[in-house]
Amino acid sequence: MTDGSPSPDTTRERIIAAAEQLFRDIGFQKTTVADIARTLSMSPANVYRFFASKKDINEAVAERMTGRKRNRIEAVAKEPGTARERMRRLLTEMHVMMAEFADADAKIQEMVAVAIAESWSVIHNHIRDLDTIIANVVREGIAEGEFSDVDPEVAGPCVRAAMTRFCHPSVLVMCRDIPQPTLDEQIDFILAALGAGRQGAPRRAGETARAS
Amino acid sequence: MTDGSPSPDTTRERIIAAAEQLFRDIGFQKTTVADIARTLSMSPANVYRFFASKKDINEAVAERMTGRKRNRIEAVAKEPGTARERMRRLLTEMHVMMAEFADADAKIQEMVAVAIAESWSVIHNHIRDLDTIIANVVREGIAEGEFSDVDPEVAGPCVRAAMTRFCHPSVLVMCRDIPQPTLDEQIDFILAALGAGRQGAPRRAGETARAS
Repeated sequence: MTDGSPSPDTTRERIIAAAEQLFRDIGFQKTTVADIARTLSMSPANVYRFFASKKDINEAVAERMTGRKRNRIEAVAKEPGTARERMRRLLTEMHVMMAEFADADAKIQEMVAVAIAESWSVIHNHIRDLDTIIANVVREGIAEGEFSDVDPEVAGPCVRAAMTRFCHPSVLVMCRDIPQPTLDEQIDFILAALGAGRQGAPRRAGETARAS
Repeated sequence: MTDGSPSPDTTRERIIAAAEQLFRDIGFQKTTVADIARTLSMSPANVYRFFASKKDINEAVAERMTGRKRNRIEAVAKEPGTARERMRRLLTEMHVMMAEFADADAKIQEMVAVAIAESWSVIHNHIRDLDTIIANVVREGIAEGEFSDVDPEVAGPCVRAAMTRFCHPSVLVMCRDIPQPTLDEQIDFILAALGAGRQGAPRRAGETARAS
């Protein structure tokens, strides 16, 4: 593009960004395509050149949001350290991220509820991405001799499922007051399942620590 | 009691049983103390001799329901077999029981929602009971040399948390279509965390099984 006009990709991105901001500011249900167009000083017809429907815009916003989360988790997974350290950091980051979301205001919750209902494939792909990031750290841990020879493709979803209590936004809210292990105890338990040596397994506190 | 009249304990039990049946048949909100009394051909005043309020009846019904679940899980945990086998059976039973509940009709769901909201201590105690049953199997597995020397009091809640995906009724419904490990894969993962030897750990399916 040498004529100074924005490329179609840039316009598309601007529409998605404006839509996300409006969803956050005034709420998903209240935001119309006309609102999005107005924010960008363009006509609704121009928005419809890029997206067939508001549903398509929603899906793009959902992709943008899950993409940010995936990048954040992936960056943590790739920081220096042993596989054990990286697994602990990435699971902690997953928990922190989802706890932030669980505490977010109603407008954000509404946006994600719609994303889950309407853009199922985006959520589905996001979960698969998380499984892949976890499986890659498992694979690297096996290669480094830190983890036992488990199947990373099975272990990835098992690790994620074992974190449900700490990572599913609804569970975080519903089970706030239910007796639970600490996050570090749960991650130690998961590391033990990956065969990450006894120093990662729950430690025996001795007979005196037994509940009566 | 030699005069043929029911003992106070029996009358109390009959009130609780009648209340549970009415909650199931006509719903929790619609059931009044007068309905419960009528079912038992007694006066509401007589019901109030045993329970100060409908809330107290609800709590007794919640205790009765969770008690049945606890007994069922405990019976499975005490069946013959190795600790590994018993852990698998008890976790499978927990899943089956909660999946039955997740599929139950709206009246049952309403009753339990009220129990959670109004009889918090009953639910809290029930969860502690489940942790204790799990911890006992862990302790027996350690004594038998089947599990590694973990702290059973920490492992109990960790095992339960690792089963959230398969045992929390709301998660069972919300996450029905989300990619997940199989129940047996998750139990294998949990058994590996308990140090139950490699035959219980997720098996490596080989490089060809990798997702692309």
